[in-house]
Amino acid sequence: MRRKNKSLKLVNKEERSLHIYEKALDLFLEEGYDNTPMAKVAQRAGISKAGLYYYCSSKENLLFIIHKYYLEKYFLPILDSAKEIAEPRERLSFLLHNYAKFFASHPAPRLLINEVNRLNRKHLKEIKDFWKRGFDLIRHTIRELQEKGDVKKFRDSFASFLAIGMAAWIYNWFDYSRPSTANELANTMVDIFFKGIEN
Amino acid sequence: MRRKNKSLKLVNKEERSLHIYEKALDLFLEEGYDNTPMAKVAQRAGISKAGLYYYCSSKENLLFIIHKYYLEKYFLPILDSAKEIAEPRERLSFLLHNYAKFFASHPAPRLLINEVNRLNRKHLKEIKDFWKRGFDLIRHTIRELQEKGDVKKFRDSFASFLAIGMAAWIYNWFDYSRPSTANELANTMVDIFFKGIEN
Repeated sequence: MRRKNKSLKLVNKEERSLHIYEKALDLFLEEGYDNTPMAKVAQRAGISKAGLYYYCSSKENLLFIIHKYYLEKYFLPILDSAKEIAEPRERLSFLLHNYAKFFASHPAPRLLINEVNRLNRKHLKEIKDFWKRGFDLIRHTIRELQEKGDVKKFRDSFASFLAIGMAAWIYNWFDYSRPSTANELANTMVDIFFKGIEN
Repeated sequence: MRRKNKSLKLVNKEERSLHIYEKALDLFLEEGYDNTPMAKVAQRAGISKAGLYYYCSSKENLLFIIHKYYLEKYFLPILDSAKEIAEPRERLSFLLHNYAKFFASHPAPRLLINEVNRLNRKHLKEIKDFWKRGFDLIRHTIRELQEKGDVKKFRDSFASFLAIGMAAWIYNWFDYSRPSTANELANTMVDIFFKGIEN
């Protein structure tokens, strides 16, 4: 009865889907993607296994949907906001700060990045394209600053990947039980990288 | 017959072991750890499956041996050399440069880091202790520089993990078919991080 009441609270299909994707994400993070059969996902989401297949066609499909959902909700908006910043120093600072916050706000990227190769070729390409948009924007901004003479003439791809590495690696070590330190971490990262590339 | 001749060339047990571990490492990198049954490892190494179990007791044990072998051969010597450098600026520069080179010289860390959680608890602890020795040395050196007033008073753990992230992330993007750029990459990383933390 409890389950039924719970799912009744979720009024429409979209809301029910989000509930399921978030439960699946939590479970994959706790137990690992490989160790989590679809029956367990269904149990955690409070629906039947058959019901789960109404929301995704396979485990791979579920992983893809979670990827897309998470990146569209939390990652792409960073890029959209950054594109509206005309001044390149300010844009780069915004990008780096929000990359760090993205990786320090939730351990989801640990799952997304570690298990990305479980996606089929088409899905993998789509997800890699999301990440690449971020890389391209950082690289383009570093180039702009190099052309203005504000930033040293490092190979721009190297500098961009090093910045992304500082941020992305966060999921391997950050203590997510202390979210109040995320802002200090983002500031530290921006300070180090910015001063480090200055001419 | 070919197999027999091949193994005869390897004169002692140690040499034969190294041959097997390197073949297994290559195969795991090419095909993925999960997708590689022990029969395939044996085939690649040119021995029987029963013969393979003479060198390791299980697939997990093989992964552990590869980890230990690789880190003892290529990672721990960096720390040993660094410890002999008294001057902290020089020590930190040496550490960062060699971390970058370590990650840019071979894609092995991609396997080691991504699959480290396949190890059993005891083995996992042993391997994590290897990595922690590197972290502790970097952190200790940054603290030393902070006490001398040479480096800004960032939280030392954050600064250390950000440096390691820059280096470790290399395995996700570096083009290993262009090894000649590894040195330029290491120099770029040291330049950015060093200037970035300076007081």
